[in-house]
Amino acid sequence: MASSSIPNVNVMMDKVKVSASNLFEQIEALGELSDTTPPSITRILYSENDVRARDYVKSLMVSAGLVVREDSLGNIYGRLTGSEDDELSPVVSGSHADAIPHSGKYDGVLGVLGAIEALRAIRDSGLRLKRPVEALMFTSEEPTRFGLSCIGSRAMCGRLDAGYLNSLRDANGTGFLEACRGGGYCKDGATTAEVLEASYVPKGGVHAFVELHIEQGPMLEDEGLDIGVVTAIAAPASVTFDFVGNGGHAGALLMPYRRDAGLVAAELALSVEQWALGTKAVDTVATTGVLQVYPGAVNSVPREAHVEVDVRDIDEERRDGVLSSIIRSAEVIARKRSVEMEHKIVNQDPPAPCDASVIDAVQESANELGLTSRRMVSRAYHDALFMAQIAPTGMIFIPCKGGVSHRPDEFSSQKDMENGVRTLALAMIKLAGVAETCDQEGKEEL
Amino acid sequence: MASSSIPNVNVMMDKVKVSASNLFEQIEALGELSDTTPPSITRILYSENDVRARDYVKSLMVSAGLVVREDSLGNIYGRLTGSEDDELSPVVSGSHADAIPHSGKYDGVLGVLGAIEALRAIRDSGLRLKRPVEALMFTSEEPTRFGLSCIGSRAMCGRLDAGYLNSLRDANGTGFLEACRGGGYCKDGATTAEVLEASYVPKGGVHAFVELHIEQGPMLEDEGLDIGVVTAIAAPASVTFDFVGNGGHAGALLMPYRRDAGLVAAELALSVEQWALGTKAVDTVATTGVLQVYPGAVNSVPREAHVEVDVRDIDEERRDGVLSSIIRSAEVIARKRSVEMEHKIVNQDPPAPCDASVIDAVQESANELGLTSRRMVSRAYHDALFMAQIAPTGMIFIPCKGGVSHRPDEFSSQKDMENGVRTLALAMIKLAGVAETCDQEGKEEL
Repeated sequence: MASSSIPNVNVMMDKVKVSASNLFEQIEALGELSDTTPPSITRILYSENDVRARDYVKSLMVSAGLVVREDSLGNIYGRLTGSEDDELSPVVSGSHADAIPHSGKYDGVLGVLGAIEALRAIRDSGLRLKRPVEALMFTSEEPTRFGLSCIGSRAMCGRLDAGYLNSLRDANGTGFLEACRGGGYCKDGATTAEVLEASYVPKGGVHAFVELHIEQGPMLEDEGLDIGVVTAIAAPASVTFDFVGNGGHAGALLMPYRRDAGLVAAELALSVEQWALGTKAVDTVATTGVLQVYPGAVNSVPREAHVEVDVRDIDEERRDGVLSSIIRSAEVIARKRSVEMEHKIVNQDPPAPCDASVIDAVQESANELGLTSRRMVSRAYHDALFMAQIAPTGMIFIPCKGGVSHRPDEFSSQKDMENGVRTLALAMIKLAGVAETCDQEGKEEL
Repeated sequence: MASSSIPNVNVMMDKVKVSASNLFEQIEALGELSDTTPPSITRILYSENDVRARDYVKSLMVSAGLVVREDSLGNIYGRLTGSEDDELSPVVSGSHADAIPHSGKYDGVLGVLGAIEALRAIRDSGLRLKRPVEALMFTSEEPTRFGLSCIGSRAMCGRLDAGYLNSLRDANGTGFLEACRGGGYCKDGATTAEVLEASYVPKGGVHAFVELHIEQGPMLEDEGLDIGVVTAIAAPASVTFDFVGNGGHAGALLMPYRRDAGLVAAELALSVEQWALGTKAVDTVATTGVLQVYPGAVNSVPREAHVEVDVRDIDEERRDGVLSSIIRSAEVIARKRSVEMEHKIVNQDPPAPCDASVIDAVQESANELGLTSRRMVSRAYHDALFMAQIAPTGMIFIPCKGGVSHRPDEFSSQKDMENGVRTLALAMIKLAGVAETCDQEGKEEL
């Protein structure tokens, strides 16, 4: 697949007018739909604010002139038809709008609202593309509610087992299907297997996928660059641990008699760090992001502890080695403290290389728009990781302030967002092919 | 103060019929008023279930023929008048009915319902005492909601500062006075200072205080004894720590750039254990009962951590040394990891010796009832610790299964509860003095 050549990009892109201020206002508006007070954003899968966010996204799609459809999991598509709509599969761009507790406004949201804005600008320009183009909002990229990330994109590429999904419970013990119905989806009595089947997109069903995202790292800002052209997505794995000791009264249970599950968790967290540092590779990261002790009272020895560990690397073998070492350490620590242990590998996905066709389309677009760029690896987890299994895939990064994300002070400037959305629009145009130019004037100049 | 002599205990105690099965049923009924599913008990200060528990306790007091009154904090008194009611201060017995998350049915509850049962049995026997006797339910012995234990008894003995109490917030940011109003108390617009003043009991206002409680340790069960005669209550202290690091995405924030607040908390928890073990004294205990990380997502480096540590010892100086060492360690660990730290000593109370008059009354009662017993130290924190500042105070322990408490499987047998309540009833009779014996028959036999 080669990208279509666009005779006069400058003339065409003068018509495809991306509005960074509209996008900024929409990001602010979506930020208001949060369980915590903005700029701290908390938007959990199928919660009231998630449902309101979905309504807002659909309203923006409609305003942009896109045809909206949803699958039974709540993956939301907004489609702009192409001149060869019946014959050709779509070029798709999207991301997610759920947000982990106390995070920021841009992670994911930029890629959803940015794709809608790109398609709106293309449509309003009068430009007619050969292929259909779609803006997509994925369901639950973040693992907050069910401990599993990228539920929507896993389902789309057929990498989600119904039995496994049924086995998941949220913190209140609610199962996935019940939660899904609570969000207004799969209300027709379908089984989990049927819901997954209905969300599945066969290989070839998407011509190309490209995701716009904030970098979530400091590289672009540090080097003063506009655009990151992503060449691969690092391989993530996560594992949960549950420990059960004896517990008891903090005054009455003397030290020699304690089997403190909280201290097992504490030792494990320090061990996780040591194993990550132990590879001496800058690309190895391991994090104890969840550490909970029960009953969680100052005067009670922790009887139980729940720990969730995330390990990533661009080298799959090295990552799997760290993961195994962490699990072995947990076993040793739990045995030493006579605490019971269970663990579960939640996900251990392979890394995804991006496709040359999409990398090239993004790189050419950035170049033609006069933007500075560099090739880079995505160290964070994205729906693109799974889309890569069914379609040629790429990503576009823009700088974010201080490289921070998953925090309330997460920030990207309007200028950077505009650069990203323009690059996305042009890359989608290249990937979808041009049927008719913007208007008579543009056509003459081409 | 010497205990009154009782000419014929056997005859009198044949009339003072304690019903262990009633008590057991009442404990089960109170256990149903829980935010978690029994036998896991969670009953938080001024919550809906706490208020329902209060109503239940008051109904039992009324059924037992006691005159009920409440102070503005919700300390609940049930009074049986004495023959010299106007001249003599009361003998009081009581405990608490709040329960830390996921704890059991007996801690505290035995001392409240046991005192009511003791007074009911005395009243129904026809025995008339010289002094009034009171069953008392204290407000918030457990520190769950505001991080401070024994709020009711601290207020009663004048050891609670209004400014400090006003500074406390629960997990939702609610202040004490607002929470108190939510529970149905202090609705008259009173200030915190006025509320505390109205709960205050001056020295001499209570003739003697005795608290019945499960041991919360294994000693009585291990030695096959019926009753623990408490001679002193160990000195507790607690400190909270808040850490703030940088946080960020678990994939994107590389190891060298992390200032992980969760790992500071983990190191601190292990240091707390080391300092406790370091005294080589069996009586030193230190516990990290609360360890929370934020945002608490598997794919997010912990930006903040909150830790609560409890330190106890029967030697106040040694305990204070361990507390200081823990705070110094926290400072060193936080500095090493470039994480900000704040700490606050929540309480640091002196130990309380029990009064010889109450110890003797309890010891004599156990002996006269033919029960086996031993003298012992209470390592747990009780309202008796504060009552000791305004009245001669003692405690009665009964065995609990496996020595466990603050757990759903906390358990004491009906026989052990009966032994405890009979010992309590007789000790209260001795401390209050007998005006008239149970009935003509009893009187003749005396």
